[in-house]
Amino acid sequence: MIRHCCIAGDIGGSNIRVSLVAEDFRILSKLKEPSGGEPLVVLIRLIQELLNNLPPAMSCCGIGLAVAGIIDKSSGTVLRSPNIQSLSGLGLGSAIKDKFGLPVIIENDANAAAYGERVAGAGRDFEDFVMLTLGTGIGGGIVIAGRLLAVSAEIGHATINMTGPQCGCGNSGCLESYASATAIIGNAVAALKNDSESMLKDLHNGNIYKISAEDIYNAALEGDPLARTLLRDAGRALGIGIANIINYFSPQAVILTGGLLGAWNIYVEAAMAEASKRAFPELYERTRIIASSLGDDAGTVGMAALVLNRPKGLKLKKN
Amino acid sequence: MIRHCCIAGDIGGSNIRVSLVAEDFRILSKLKEPSGGEPLVVLIRLIQELLNNLPPAMSCCGIGLAVAGIIDKSSGTVLRSPNIQSLSGLGLGSAIKDKFGLPVIIENDANAAAYGERVAGAGRDFEDFVMLTLGTGIGGGIVIAGRLLAVSAEIGHATINMTGPQCGCGNSGCLESYASATAIIGNAVAALKNDSESMLKDLHNGNIYKISAEDIYNAALEGDPLARTLLRDAGRALGIGIANIINYFSPQAVILTGGLLGAWNIYVEAAMAEASKRAFPELYERTRIIASSLGDDAGTVGMAALVLNRPKGLKLKKN
Repeated sequence: MIRHCCIAGDIGGSNIRVSLVAEDFRILSKLKEPSGGEPLVVLIRLIQELLNNLPPAMSCCGIGLAVAGIIDKSSGTVLRSPNIQSLSGLGLGSAIKDKFGLPVIIENDANAAAYGERVAGAGRDFEDFVMLTLGTGIGGGIVIAGRLLAVSAEIGHATINMTGPQCGCGNSGCLESYASATAIIGNAVAALKNDSESMLKDLHNGNIYKISAEDIYNAALEGDPLARTLLRDAGRALGIGIANIINYFSPQAVILTGGLLGAWNIYVEAAMAEASKRAFPELYERTRIIASSLGDDAGTVGMAALVLNRPKGLKLKKN
Repeated sequence: MIRHCCIAGDIGGSNIRVSLVAEDFRILSKLKEPSGGEPLVVLIRLIQELLNNLPPAMSCCGIGLAVAGIIDKSSGTVLRSPNIQSLSGLGLGSAIKDKFGLPVIIENDANAAAYGERVAGAGRDFEDFVMLTLGTGIGGGIVIAGRLLAVSAEIGHATINMTGPQCGCGNSGCLESYASATAIIGNAVAALKNDSESMLKDLHNGNIYKISAEDIYNAALEGDPLARTLLRDAGRALGIGIANIINYFSPQAVILTGGLLGAWNIYVEAAMAEASKRAFPELYERTRIIASSLGDDAGTVGMAALVLNRPKGLKLKKN
């Protein structure tokens, strides 16, 4: 008996990850490589390697690629990829389809992660939820009536402060400029340059430009006041974003993922407190705010589900 | 031959409007009455009057009610209705169903208007659009893949300014606090109390508390600098809201409705200019910003379409 599988890739930050995924969403094998200067070359090589080593009696029925950026789903074009500039404007879908002769779906990475959580993770019990990926940037994915909304869902780039600072996206006062790891690190560096007292000063031989989000939440867990203030302020901004999501979507859940969840007790609890003050109480009380369960594999599982199930709500270009 | 029809009501501001609507969405008859102190009593009386006068060979297959407020669609309960306090917490769906023995659907009024535009108005050519109702408040309705999203869509109560003024909803810095008719009038009164020069001063025998949004845009059209500034500032805030919508939903269109569109050249053009600066350019250039075509009838047509078509995406309680 032939069993179906697919290839699911995640092209986000500095690495390209490509996996072979079975029909039941088990990840059978996984390759990972720095995206480097020629991400398309790396991507094609990794896909070829997985196809060359398909297990016996297994048929690959398509390729799904989760890409950080704005995607034109009908053509599979990456309209803009802030992290991997060379992908911007690239007809990624047709390039991969032409190379391998298999159906290809391209999705935004946070959308893919949301759908992964829907089919096999923390979103399984919710018909309506919004996922936020909290990392160097903030991404979003929206599931309504059990379906992934085929929209940009760039929730990190919605204005929460009309007079706020310029964001890399061109807007100003974006949620991402207040609540992302990048924002927290930037605020830490600014405070330390301004001579704030903190144990963060002594890390990395005093090189404050090497401070990571993990450093900040480790310091916060040890009671460092600056680190706690930074995370609490970022959490409050996140709470504004969550309140907006609740007022927009009346979801059953908001699912959070990303490294910043290590600071749940400070960052996410501050977010919940702020969201509870801002969202309609009738909606807030019906919304659960929870952590993802698939972690880094959510995007891979989501792309596999999109390729293997081809849900009606999504337009899959077959050829 | 029996022809199908339905009753569609709109329970928004100071009036209750109830219409008999044919299968082709023609409005056959329309009743309107002030909602007064007992809106449920008025509503039931108007529905009864339409049912008593059904044209021959016509069968009424259900009742759809568009209500300003937050609706629990599964139970037909009005969780909160800011304009008609006595509806808040009311099981409106079951009250009307018990009374008339017909299927009942309750929807938010802006959602209903969006769906009306989708089936018979300015949204007919768009699979993906967001509608904004611009009046004393700001409501929203979201259509994705041709379906009305069954979500709260309280876009007017998303924060656009984290340090902004308190809103009646409990949040602060809401879009509605900057871009609604109420906001514009409030800013006009504040400016006139502060001795700003304007032709608005001479209206209503100098009673500035009687100034309406229409007064303001009429003055603006005559070149009054204060009126123009007020509308332009409100338009800029609307543009922030529209940019957020574009970054969330990558829609084909944003459809606007409401009395404020009389000031399109100032208010909406300022909104477009601001949105073009804030939304992702790749998405903004694909989004049309247009006026509704059904006007006040959009909600009625939308409710009729929900009752008569019962689209799969929506949960219709049959009993």
